[in-house]
Amino acid sequence: MVLRLFDFNRAPNPRRVRIFLAEKGVEIPLVPVNLYRHEQRSAAFLAINPGGTVPVLELDDGTRLTECLAICRYLEHLHPEPRLFGGSPRQEALVLMWAGIVDQEGLAAAAEALRNLSPGFRDHALPGPVPHAQLPALVQRGLQRLESFFDRVEARLATSAHLAGDAYSYADISLLVTVDFAGWVDVVPMRTRPALARWHARVSARPSAGA
Amino acid sequence: MVLRLFDFNRAPNPRRVRIFLAEKGVEIPLVPVNLYRHEQRSAAFLAINPGGTVPVLELDDGTRLTECLAICRYLEHLHPEPRLFGGSPRQEALVLMWAGIVDQEGLAAAAEALRNLSPGFRDHALPGPVPHAQLPALVQRGLQRLESFFDRVEARLATSAHLAGDAYSYADISLLVTVDFAGWVDVVPMRTRPALARWHARVSARPSAGA
Repeated sequence: MVLRLFDFNRAPNPRRVRIFLAEKGVEIPLVPVNLYRHEQRSAAFLAINPGGTVPVLELDDGTRLTECLAICRYLEHLHPEPRLFGGSPRQEALVLMWAGIVDQEGLAAAAEALRNLSPGFRDHALPGPVPHAQLPALVQRGLQRLESFFDRVEARLATSAHLAGDAYSYADISLLVTVDFAGWVDVVPMRTRPALARWHARVSARPSAGA
Repeated sequence: MVLRLFDFNRAPNPRRVRIFLAEKGVEIPLVPVNLYRHEQRSAAFLAINPGGTVPVLELDDGTRLTECLAICRYLEHLHPEPRLFGGSPRQEALVLMWAGIVDQEGLAAAAEALRNLSPGFRDHALPGPVPHAQLPALVQRGLQRLESFFDRVEARLATSAHLAGDAYSYADISLLVTVDFAGWVDVVPMRTRPALARWHARVSARPSAGA
């Protein structure tokens, strides 16, 4: 059913899927796409994903799934345990809500800072095949957004063991990847946020975090 | 179970939920939050949603769900028919994938152009309570992203009746809202894209499009 996962071992989004798979105890063939060599913008890869991003999950009927959430939901159907999208409609909604907040306010902010700062992203301040110039003002904006996001997360984790409630979920995987990715722009949010620091120590101790 | 929906009748995101409800034939009490008067940044509303956005779905146990996807998935559990997230794991994954692409490449691009252009968003170029200055360079970037997005959608709709396959889905609702929202920055993508034009005429003819 699942053929293979197009992956890059240094990028945050594919790491989400690798952690998800590790939590499920599932291994699938990985196909490396070297983003440092811009292979994601090669004609060969754009024929696989016109969006020019990894991860991509390829199924045996030729379907290619992009977007971490779509990929992980599909994998949850194939491998239901342990449940990483909640066990009830309400729990599922909270997982999706927090995953959405992490994507839009956290991961996007870290990417905004990094992609407008690092020479490696010159002319590609946004993902995809179309060039976009770096804008220096977005470095500072990305960093500010990131701090606001971590403040919001701190308030949540001060009263909840995990983002979506008691149970570890896909939303926590997204947050872990975001926290570690923030280190690329020298943001270490745990220094001033004790609840986030406790959460980060706990989820980082899971074997899946090494994925 | 569902108490009420915090809404604003001129904003694209709440419209997604209203169309979704109309497709299900379900009515729930709406609480207007006037974004034109900045009520979403009032202390009273930030106590309801610290993110300062609508829509918010309030449940009878006090849970408040934000993020359109989380809200609509929850409503799908309560009202399964007609199915708007596909009828199989593969179909669901394609709905989530295309909905994600619309959110990140389409709706976000239209919002980037509008929020950095319109005087109504001065000092609030991003959603939420934290001020962010408008950046003129992002108007043009948003418009460019929007055109690239609609090109990608055109290629898809040239070979597929709807975004995620044969059936109308949540991804189409997201696209309809994005297309109509693009008009706010004078982008009418149907003019040069025949497949998108046919799709837009078809989905706009559904009674739910009036929501």
